[in-house]
Amino acid sequence: MDILTRHVTIRDFLNLPLDNELVNQLLNCGIRASTTGNMQWYSIIVTKSLTQKEKIIPLHFNQKPAKTAPVILTFCADINRFNKWCLLNNTDPGYNNFLSFFNAAIDALLVAQNVCIAAENIGLGICYLGTAVYNAQELIDVLNLPTLVVPVTSVALGWPAEFPPLTDRLPLKAVVHIEEYHDYSNEAIRTLYKVKENLESSKQFIKENNVETLAQVFTTVRYKKTDNEYFSEKFLRTLRNQGFMV
Amino acid sequence: MDILTRHVTIRDFLNLPLDNELVNQLLNCGIRASTTGNMQWYSIIVTKSLTQKEKIIPLHFNQKPAKTAPVILTFCADINRFNKWCLLNNTDPGYNNFLSFFNAAIDALLVAQNVCIAAENIGLGICYLGTAVYNAQELIDVLNLPTLVVPVTSVALGWPAEFPPLTDRLPLKAVVHIEEYHDYSNEAIRTLYKVKENLESSKQFIKENNVETLAQVFTTVRYKKTDNEYFSEKFLRTLRNQGFMV
Repeated sequence: MDILTRHVTIRDFLNLPLDNELVNQLLNCGIRASTTGNMQWYSIIVTKSLTQKEKIIPLHFNQKPAKTAPVILTFCADINRFNKWCLLNNTDPGYNNFLSFFNAAIDALLVAQNVCIAAENIGLGICYLGTAVYNAQELIDVLNLPTLVVPVTSVALGWPAEFPPLTDRLPLKAVVHIEEYHDYSNEAIRTLYKVKENLESSKQFIKENNVETLAQVFTTVRYKKTDNEYFSEKFLRTLRNQGFMV
Repeated sequence: MDILTRHVTIRDFLNLPLDNELVNQLLNCGIRASTTGNMQWYSIIVTKSLTQKEKIIPLHFNQKPAKTAPVILTFCADINRFNKWCLLNNTDPGYNNFLSFFNAAIDALLVAQNVCIAAENIGLGICYLGTAVYNAQELIDVLNLPTLVVPVTSVALGWPAEFPPLTDRLPLKAVVHIEEYHDYSNEAIRTLYKVKENLESSKQFIKENNVETLAQVFTTVRYKKTDNEYFSEKFLRTLRNQGFMV
């Protein structure tokens, strides 16, 4: 369990290629994850070439992990393959809906997490790139994804060029509820977030961004309402374009 | 990596309780998973009591793993806690949209997979219950989930009462694409699904369900178009009810 509890995100990778055989080992761990009805509603796109990276890195907003990683994996909800199989077998699939997309997304994310754990187990570093969802449409174009295939996350993968310390987490009791949800009083919220607010790094964030509270760093700088709403509409449009909201 | 490659779903559990301390160890592995902006947009509801189980098991269609597991974990996308923290810190959150829900769902699913791997590492068995999404609204009622909290998956957890063999997977090349997606010809689909179609268990499924092809078992019995469309609408309605599609 040490592999799980020692996880840190790596944002800078050594300029060393990854062997295809090694990547396949990780992917083979990935596809053993649980999958809805054993239908494997996912595909993984491996990006290693400079040509593709030049197109993909800007879609991840030129973040350092995307720029420095020798491999970027894009995990996609994929019902195209299963759909084709159904059509070849005299039956009408009926998976062009939001529920099926969501099931496929679950499948893809469990595979992604397995691959990340397998990678960390041999000393590789990983960084999830949430930007895959922000720019799903552009990734679809670059990766040539057909109807019923949508990226749900990307992972930058490589040998770590940094060894950052563990980041903070809220105490377990903040995120676990026994038998039913016990909603938080203002006092409980203040107590649960106190350690995070008092971290040196948090104080630094507040200062750098010239705001009053740590929460404002999130709401006015990192995850802004206007951005969320813009990318939300964009992602829903992508799901419709890819045939998932019929 | 053996833990990952040996994964099998357990659908029958021994009638043995799980120690709270042990469950907390697993959950502590869970919360070390990557999380968007370290915001931890998830909550986990632990169901152990008979009273709650009697309400929850039917929502999982009385499936054997739900009925026999000593513990059911329900992993929820949760922005309620973070939202309250923002409001207490003089700022307007802006996370009541689909993108934020989806980010929270990713967070929750990575935690779930970590918990499952930690569980399997000590010999426990797990079964994902996709029904959490089908009956999200009813789970919200039973688990008392507030606005901005939605179940995305449940996991039945316990000591295995069965030791099933590994299930089949498509060959790696069926789900991995190098540099860009290479769409499947009819011939490729036929080849990639041949092993699955020829399994004894597949032939049995076809016979039992009185259909012609394995694909028809999925489309006409297990994951039917009418069901998918019904539960799709229902889940979208739940997302709106919980404040995520403003």
